[in-house]
Amino acid sequence: MNNFEFKNPTKIIFGKDSIAKLANEIPSDAKVLLLYGGGSIKQNGIYNQVKAALKDIDHLEFGGIPANPEYDILLKALKCIKEEQITYLLAVGGGSVIDGTKFLSAAAYFEGETPWDLLTNKIPTLEGMPFGTVLTLPATGSEMNSGAVITRAETQEKLAMGGAGLFPKFSVLDPQVIQSIPERQLVNGITDAFTHVLEQYITYPAGALLQDRFAESIMQTLIEVAPKIIEDPKDYNAASNFMWSCTMALNGLIQKGVPTDWAIHAMGHELTALFGIDHARTLAIIAPSHYQYNFETKKEKLAQYGERVWQITEGSLEDKAYQAIERTEAFFKSLGIHTRLSEYTEAYEGTAELISQRFYERGWMGLGEHQNLKPEDVEHIVTMAY
Amino acid sequence: MNNFEFKNPTKIIFGKDSIAKLANEIPSDAKVLLLYGGGSIKQNGIYNQVKAALKDIDHLEFGGIPANPEYDILLKALKCIKEEQITYLLAVGGGSVIDGTKFLSAAAYFEGETPWDLLTNKIPTLEGMPFGTVLTLPATGSEMNSGAVITRAETQEKLAMGGAGLFPKFSVLDPQVIQSIPERQLVNGITDAFTHVLEQYITYPAGALLQDRFAESIMQTLIEVAPKIIEDPKDYNAASNFMWSCTMALNGLIQKGVPTDWAIHAMGHELTALFGIDHARTLAIIAPSHYQYNFETKKEKLAQYGERVWQITEGSLEDKAYQAIERTEAFFKSLGIHTRLSEYTEAYEGTAELISQRFYERGWMGLGEHQNLKPEDVEHIVTMAY
Repeated sequence: MNNFEFKNPTKIIFGKDSIAKLANEIPSDAKVLLLYGGGSIKQNGIYNQVKAALKDIDHLEFGGIPANPEYDILLKALKCIKEEQITYLLAVGGGSVIDGTKFLSAAAYFEGETPWDLLTNKIPTLEGMPFGTVLTLPATGSEMNSGAVITRAETQEKLAMGGAGLFPKFSVLDPQVIQSIPERQLVNGITDAFTHVLEQYITYPAGALLQDRFAESIMQTLIEVAPKIIEDPKDYNAASNFMWSCTMALNGLIQKGVPTDWAIHAMGHELTALFGIDHARTLAIIAPSHYQYNFETKKEKLAQYGERVWQITEGSLEDKAYQAIERTEAFFKSLGIHTRLSEYTEAYEGTAELISQRFYERGWMGLGEHQNLKPEDVEHIVTMAY
Repeated sequence: MNNFEFKNPTKIIFGKDSIAKLANEIPSDAKVLLLYGGGSIKQNGIYNQVKAALKDIDHLEFGGIPANPEYDILLKALKCIKEEQITYLLAVGGGSVIDGTKFLSAAAYFEGETPWDLLTNKIPTLEGMPFGTVLTLPATGSEMNSGAVITRAETQEKLAMGGAGLFPKFSVLDPQVIQSIPERQLVNGITDAFTHVLEQYITYPAGALLQDRFAESIMQTLIEVAPKIIEDPKDYNAASNFMWSCTMALNGLIQKGVPTDWAIHAMGHELTALFGIDHARTLAIIAPSHYQYNFETKKEKLAQYGERVWQITEGSLEDKAYQAIERTEAFFKSLGIHTRLSEYTEAYEGTAELISQRFYERGWMGLGEHQNLKPEDVEHIVTMAY
């Protein structure tokens, strides 16, 4: 097991009818900016629940944060925060709204020239404006971690930021929100969380027995509840296990003491930036090819995953590893998620070269747990995913 | 899954040679009281590592905190804290030293009449004097939770206390400390952590799929590493998994959203108070009888545990559940832990009646996950454990 440090101070308020409790978490003298996305919270009743909870708290609203939170829109929210002397942020949404709020938390206290530097210069945020979240779409784990991914249309970029100051003070997780999520987003959430675990687990054996078993636990739970949620999003028990699994998949716990990969995300982000493909679906496109291309360095963990998560008992280590990749792709397909780039766009030719070129230009030479994947490897992997 | 709230702000600093890092965590203007136990840290080199880390920090020492931290001794440390205007506590030890330090953290800020009221009146500590820990004996999980158990010889009592203000600010976990732990304490640690998981898991099915799998993960890991650690406490990888498993067994995570039992601990504490039997061994004495006595209400979880943790595939649900109890007792015995009270004392006659009587006098009528175990049930269970 590798050395590690772990601290996650986010308070989780989990369960039925928990949105009303958020008022207890916000200082009574706060001036709050309530942030949300496209307005679905106004249809499904979550907006009303949040407004009721905030009835005695001074607050303003900023709606319209899109999927893949867009820098230009966030700058408008930042202007509002400064002009209105906001002191506390409340994100009501999925990963995009929460990530956007993290950017605003950092930018509100940032003294540099332009807040985009937080992303391009990878400046960690040690203290941000305090914020809480009400999660409306389980998927990214952003509700209990300190990272965010921000998109800038102008430059077709999608970059990461973070820092110890960007954990939510609290996150409200009411699994009842799942009953109003469209199936497309539900299966995206399952795929996203599942791939988060894969990125922290399909590397090489590092003797982290407990972390491995926790990772396998999350994947087993997602596999068990996925068909139930799709069948009936009102199945509270399936929904609650789905929601908690998504949070645990990326709150830092399972990545402590182990090598992590994240190359699938790095390549996937480019597909979203270029084609606007849903984030989770880009992961399902890249993952099978990535594992086939890097089979030799990942086969021990792939086989362990096959044995423990997919109950593959027959064959050699290589057989099990190979079957594990097949089962993973089949799982995504069982959710209705396509796993080939050509199923999303006809204009896929040249994509591999373009992405490889962008990595090359950024000087980002080493992807993966060994940090040895070069732009030419990326080109191979993306080509395999056509 | 039940509703829950979860927040655990303790920073974990885990790994080889991590003791030196503790100085970064303590404010430079702090006046620290370094607390430890019987002095084994002076033999095994941990004391010297801590002293080296504290070289630029103003600090005093208080040694001699015994196993089952004794109230009268802690009062002497409390006097020192007040007289010397200590501002920060540093526990270097196992669960007893850390629990004693938690009592001191609470008592230092307590404004009531006598600090024993914190225990008898179950007063939660919302703010205590800040403290960190250097864990020298994995077992209790106290390094990453906010609870403590304090013993008072005068009244033969062993009572619990806690509160959100009693999480360590940081805990240093260096698995290398395990190589100098005597085998008796190592097997106690394994048994203690394993039983912590049982108490949070062997109840009734509550639909918490992920928490169940996490609990099973910890037990599977402990079973896997136990023989390796006993064989060779210098096996760093086994030691690191053992250490992290003990922490995860009782840092709150696996008990969220599920019913918990803790009757084994309640009865076990009495055996320690009456006979001075090591805490972990009292759990091994009580657990098999407790599960046999409460077989009907616990058989579903016992069978799941048997299937997943002990790979019992044959027989009815009842068969699997019964075998799971047998395997648990056999596991404790494989560690050299006796599982009958009569193996520890010849004076066991009348113990069941005495413990039952004490529970009755305390008005503590409902033990277990259904809170329906009465003093007469306790009498039966303890008698079965003779």
